[in-house]
Amino acid sequence: MSSAAAHPAERSSRPTAGALRALIAELEPILGDRITTGAGIREQHGHDESWHHPAAPDAVCFPHSTDEVSTVVRACATHRVPVIPYGVGTSIEGQVIAEHGGLSVDLSAMNAILEVRPEDMDATVQPGVTRTQLNTHLRATGLFFSVDPGADASMGGMASTRASGTNTVRYGTIRDNVLSMTVVMPDGRIVKTGTRARKSAAGYDLTHLMIGAEGTLGIITELNVKLHGLPEAISSATVAFEDVAGAVNAVIASIQYGIPMARIELMDALAMRAVNRFSGFDYAEKPTLFLEFHGTHASVKEQAETMLELCQELGGSDFAWATREEERQALWQARHDAAYAAKALRPGMEFLATDICVPISQLAECIEATQADVAESSLIAPLLGHVGDGNFHLVVAVDRNSKQELETLAAFNRRLIERALAAGGTCTGEHGIGTGKRVYMKAEHGEGWAVMRAIKQALDPLGIMNPGKLV
Amino acid sequence: MSSAAAHPAERSSRPTAGALRALIAELEPILGDRITTGAGIREQHGHDESWHHPAAPDAVCFPHSTDEVSTVVRACATHRVPVIPYGVGTSIEGQVIAEHGGLSVDLSAMNAILEVRPEDMDATVQPGVTRTQLNTHLRATGLFFSVDPGADASMGGMASTRASGTNTVRYGTIRDNVLSMTVVMPDGRIVKTGTRARKSAAGYDLTHLMIGAEGTLGIITELNVKLHGLPEAISSATVAFEDVAGAVNAVIASIQYGIPMARIELMDALAMRAVNRFSGFDYAEKPTLFLEFHGTHASVKEQAETMLELCQELGGSDFAWATREEERQALWQARHDAAYAAKALRPGMEFLATDICVPISQLAECIEATQADVAESSLIAPLLGHVGDGNFHLVVAVDRNSKQELETLAAFNRRLIERALAAGGTCTGEHGIGTGKRVYMKAEHGEGWAVMRAIKQALDPLGIMNPGKLV
Repeated sequence: MSSAAAHPAERSSRPTAGALRALIAELEPILGDRITTGAGIREQHGHDESWHHPAAPDAVCFPHSTDEVSTVVRACATHRVPVIPYGVGTSIEGQVIAEHGGLSVDLSAMNAILEVRPEDMDATVQPGVTRTQLNTHLRATGLFFSVDPGADASMGGMASTRASGTNTVRYGTIRDNVLSMTVVMPDGRIVKTGTRARKSAAGYDLTHLMIGAEGTLGIITELNVKLHGLPEAISSATVAFEDVAGAVNAVIASIQYGIPMARIELMDALAMRAVNRFSGFDYAEKPTLFLEFHGTHASVKEQAETMLELCQELGGSDFAWATREEERQALWQARHDAAYAAKALRPGMEFLATDICVPISQLAECIEATQADVAESSLIAPLLGHVGDGNFHLVVAVDRNSKQELETLAAFNRRLIERALAAGGTCTGEHGIGTGKRVYMKAEHGEGWAVMRAIKQALDPLGIMNPGKLV
Repeated sequence: MSSAAAHPAERSSRPTAGALRALIAELEPILGDRITTGAGIREQHGHDESWHHPAAPDAVCFPHSTDEVSTVVRACATHRVPVIPYGVGTSIEGQVIAEHGGLSVDLSAMNAILEVRPEDMDATVQPGVTRTQLNTHLRATGLFFSVDPGADASMGGMASTRASGTNTVRYGTIRDNVLSMTVVMPDGRIVKTGTRARKSAAGYDLTHLMIGAEGTLGIITELNVKLHGLPEAISSATVAFEDVAGAVNAVIASIQYGIPMARIELMDALAMRAVNRFSGFDYAEKPTLFLEFHGTHASVKEQAETMLELCQELGGSDFAWATREEERQALWQARHDAAYAAKALRPGMEFLATDICVPISQLAECIEATQADVAESSLIAPLLGHVGDGNFHLVVAVDRNSKQELETLAAFNRRLIERALAAGGTCTGEHGIGTGKRVYMKAEHGEGWAVMRAIKQALDPLGIMNPGKLV
């Protein structure tokens, strides 16, 4: 595990025309028109929802089974062609960009919900299943899948990028909601990372090694995921505060008090102004908490009353409540619209969504320092956050054609990340590393990054799996 | 990652006398009398609480800091001497047995609680801190550390063996309660596996790779652990059932209903008979659930009422209740005494504690088949289980001097594990692999075990870290 060992990705380069021809000749008899070099499809697979520069793969294929994925990866290993797993393309740090060309393996056709087991409260799904598809399928069961990033991401993509969302504070990230997976390794071997048992002490935790690996160690082809019972009752509330510190103090108090809240979201004054303008609301333009309570009718009432009492003590005002579903939807609309509203502040631009996460004791100070930096940098950057987890985003418009804007924004993001690391936090709470944040890995992990490279080297010695990402 | 690569542990052999002399000569000037070859201390470090044959290390040392651990490991790498991390010796699959000799690194002197942060609900501790020590320290804060294996294990040991306990169903295993760690790698490098942020999407999950690695990838020298708020109210109950299936159905119903129970433990009829005899109770000698509810006064009352209603519908009887602390202690005494009571059925023997975990839908059938096997094998094997997780143990006496008994028991355990694997479960829910269950790793993990070996090979190419365990 010498840290001087060549970085696998550095050894990777664009495949030769001959290698590509040979690969396609090998796979076409198996996949037929499910492997293509058509320009439109390649281009579509060369970008995600990020501001990062796109790069198209040399070819795209659409396997239908774990065995087909294994065949594809084995062939890519033989011909030394990079493999880029592709779900539905909603990543936001460039995870699916084909920096070194290669074959994009689009898993969207592997979208079967194979089994739902209400007694075990789990389901077996293929990686192309999206979270909305799964929850629609579950409607009659009284169960739901909890992880809810902004986009209607695929299960494989969420696992690969260690996604989370608004109800992580109660139900956990994808990391907490995958029991085990089937993974095609970089040499084509098929590995099950664990069983469906709720816990196990049997060996290295391959499940969690593959979660967040962004396709650099293999391709996820099946997942056993946890489901949760739909609560008997849900109620929602919004509360405004004079400043961010007040809102964060209310969050800390509620967690210490043990209120099992399902969602604790923050929008700052500018984000509230943006949604008022975008959606015609008339919310107070102050830092605002969006809250959701799950449980029995009695417990939800008790939780909500306790929380609102805490908020009042800590300077909360402008309370709004909702218990009926339509009312709750209306109340949460502002939060759901936040990203679109932020983007509408500067139409036609690209957007950077920052993504730091810090210990909650550091959150108020970190947000305030960031807002001061926003003001000094003359950026328009509404803030929204999963503050129960210490995670927040700024959505910042950028004109990709303006070198100066790009530089200003990159410098701002660097300062933000340095602030997070100094506060004992991480450069990404839920968006991942991709191509966008590799530059921060050394600062965050130190020698740990070398350990990651040693693992990559051991499992993907040819460096074919999603080169240029993460390690 | 060829699966034909030599197993690192296979390359390991007992260190030569010369290597040991050189190692001790190098370390004595640094550690003084904190490195010793005294027979008594070596013997004490050659066994854990398991039935596995002990093997003493060649020497034992007692470092005081991460830097000292790093120095020790670096020296062991230089001289090719095996390193066996040792906490408080309460493991039960032979994890601390020095199969290949070497240096036992006893971390019990590194038992400082470095920081408790109520706002973040976390603490930074050294690996020698025991769970009781931490909870005693936390008494005034209103917080507690939740993981509670039977023994008063050390934090480093619990992390290394991926321990859990009675309240995992609500608060998770150690895996869910460690934010990040400091680890000394097999070459002496010091690595931080993550930050104190509640979530992160930054790179491979080194924290979870090290949890459950049983010291084969490095030595844990510091942990950031999650704390939970002590509930406002606790109530406990016991309910008897005519058969195991009734009890398990009640557990399944309660989980589906979303009752956030803190503990759901099962003891079978024989286990109840054992505690009646051992502790003078007069419980019904039927399969019995031990339940605990945490929350506000109102929510605990609601949870308990709903659960008892469910139990009644499913044939529960002989209800007992407790809310005051002394009453609760008395009620749980039977569960706490269960292992001792089981051992008292055949005094003077060694004991094997089996440890499978299956999806809960398979639990009743698996327990019933196991009880039939117990009857056929003429074993005395009371059963207790963390049934909310699908995990159960049988505590079986064995005369280590009787070859026939050892063979009968080993065959019984093999059938039990095969039954668990066939049911989609694991060979160990919480005890780990150690020397005892390596033989089942191939059956449980298939190609996944080869992946584990490739990781071991990459991070510990000399094979010095706890050889003979797990991989």
